[in-house]
Amino acid sequence: MASRRQIGEFELIARYFAPLARTFRGAGGLESDNAFLPATARHDTAVKTDTIVAGVHFLADETPERVAAKALRICLSDLAAGGAVPLAYQLSLALPKGWQERWVARFVRGLAADQRRYGIVLCGGDTVVTPGPLTVTITAFGRVPRGKGLGRSGARAGDELWVSGTIGDGALGLLVARGRLKGLGAREHKVLEDRYRLPRPRTALGGLLIGIATAAADVSDGLLADAGHIAAASRLEAHVAREQVPLSGATRRALALDPALWANVLGGGDDYELVIAVPPRKRAALLAAARRAGVPVTPVGRFARGGGVRLTVDGKRTKVPRAGYVHF
Amino acid sequence: MASRRQIGEFELIARYFAPLARTFRGAGGLESDNAFLPATARHDTAVKTDTIVAGVHFLADETPERVAAKALRICLSDLAAGGAVPLAYQLSLALPKGWQERWVARFVRGLAADQRRYGIVLCGGDTVVTPGPLTVTITAFGRVPRGKGLGRSGARAGDELWVSGTIGDGALGLLVARGRLKGLGAREHKVLEDRYRLPRPRTALGGLLIGIATAAADVSDGLLADAGHIAAASRLEAHVAREQVPLSGATRRALALDPALWANVLGGGDDYELVIAVPPRKRAALLAAARRAGVPVTPVGRFARGGGVRLTVDGKRTKVPRAGYVHF
Repeated sequence: MASRRQIGEFELIARYFAPLARTFRGAGGLESDNAFLPATARHDTAVKTDTIVAGVHFLADETPERVAAKALRICLSDLAAGGAVPLAYQLSLALPKGWQERWVARFVRGLAADQRRYGIVLCGGDTVVTPGPLTVTITAFGRVPRGKGLGRSGARAGDELWVSGTIGDGALGLLVARGRLKGLGAREHKVLEDRYRLPRPRTALGGLLIGIATAAADVSDGLLADAGHIAAASRLEAHVAREQVPLSGATRRALALDPALWANVLGGGDDYELVIAVPPRKRAALLAAARRAGVPVTPVGRFARGGGVRLTVDGKRTKVPRAGYVHF
Repeated sequence: MASRRQIGEFELIARYFAPLARTFRGAGGLESDNAFLPATARHDTAVKTDTIVAGVHFLADETPERVAAKALRICLSDLAAGGAVPLAYQLSLALPKGWQERWVARFVRGLAADQRRYGIVLCGGDTVVTPGPLTVTITAFGRVPRGKGLGRSGARAGDELWVSGTIGDGALGLLVARGRLKGLGAREHKVLEDRYRLPRPRTALGGLLIGIATAAADVSDGLLADAGHIAAASRLEAHVAREQVPLSGATRRALALDPALWANVLGGGDDYELVIAVPPRKRAALLAAARRAGVPVTPVGRFARGGGVRLTVDGKRTKVPRAGYVHF
């Protein structure tokens, strides 16, 4: 077999890992954020594993508390996308040589704070020392009503495409953190950078989406990429109207100064908002759930027959700026 | 707080991670190989996470198939120690820069073979690229009867201490692989090295221990260390009679040539046998289970009031050679 290095993560999963999961129904062909293991007569257990590596998925100088929060919260964001309520997690911590006990103490303090905040608890794991960079793997467990867990593949033509919160702050925050976005006020820089460094998973909304959404994903690869993942898994086309995409004040101002940043806003990752497919008749239920969760939601497009992602600006089709943040 | 680097893995867990798991009953204070999550009315789900790093937990030149087998099997060994029957697993694969698709294809072939061998199936995971060494984290799930999962803390004074298979081959196999054990025949070298490179988890026996064993662990840190972990968690003393420890022909010959290797045999890791606490009245049931599983078991000592590990040679107390393989 020819040796080729640069196939992407999705191709790697489809070609090599999905066949290993073929006989496990709750794995959904590895197309969704979560696996669902049958648990009680009334519930399934949603399961999600995420790995973050220092210098790759977070800045190498990040504080221990924020590394802990990021590792846990990106899993919580996936559980929310699956409609699951957080239960427990396993932690694998690969500490770099020369690790300091003080670092671990602060990392654990970060986990403890988020355990209280999100109602989740450590249930086991592993600790090793690595000659490589700090690497954190979390496997999180959540609870969903039996057979009702949300994946990427349930959307239907005609469903509306909604997003929670605001889009693009995470990607612009990464630029700020790297000193590559200037010209905004110090407070705006701080708001954006904070969105990048500290995800706010939509846990409160996730569990309320059962019975309302037909599919959901979290925005970790970028709005267009993640809407595209739902479209691909559901064999549909995702239509996104750029002018409807909800933006923070800081992101709006950054775009006014440099419209080229639209590529980052729509194509960059790390928003950890939810992108949700909702049948039109469930619109009122979604708005009620969002109110109850205290999470704003905005319709940004719809799903239609076809394939891929179609981006429009004021009704005019435009080029999809880039395929999503390639963190692989 | 003073910064001290070299506290051990068990101390790190006790001081920092166990408090995070305090409110989760099935975590057992992180003292056992597995966590147990309540699943159905009749079953719990045993959960175990293990991470292996190239050059630390396996030789950097190991074949992809064997890396896959080792990563999966060390988790299966823990499930067996918990009395659990394998169900499914999550895989986090951190590939080094410059990874080859061909490597992944062979790694996946290794997983597929073990899925068939052990009746387990992939249900999800994550794939990332790291500037560090290849790192594999597996979280495995198994099934145990509700409330019956085995941990390290259930042994009682008077229980016998049994082990499966033979002890020491893994540790001597590591010496062979590193070119540091010579003088045996080529075939014996191969047998030992193979035991190191390819664990044989006692999956067939594990599920049969429910209702027979009061506590169990797998021999991953070394017989004395792992018997000691059961003793510590059960607040007892483990007595081990060295002359009763079951040895392979190759290990017996290596010890005849160099008795100093007893330190490796009793203190080295990577046997992936089971060490089992069994009340004397359950002896016949254990032997029947072992016959059914096709796994030899041998009594090597007992648990008594006290603390720590007491090693005897022909009835005479002797010094415990070392505290177990420190892979941390």
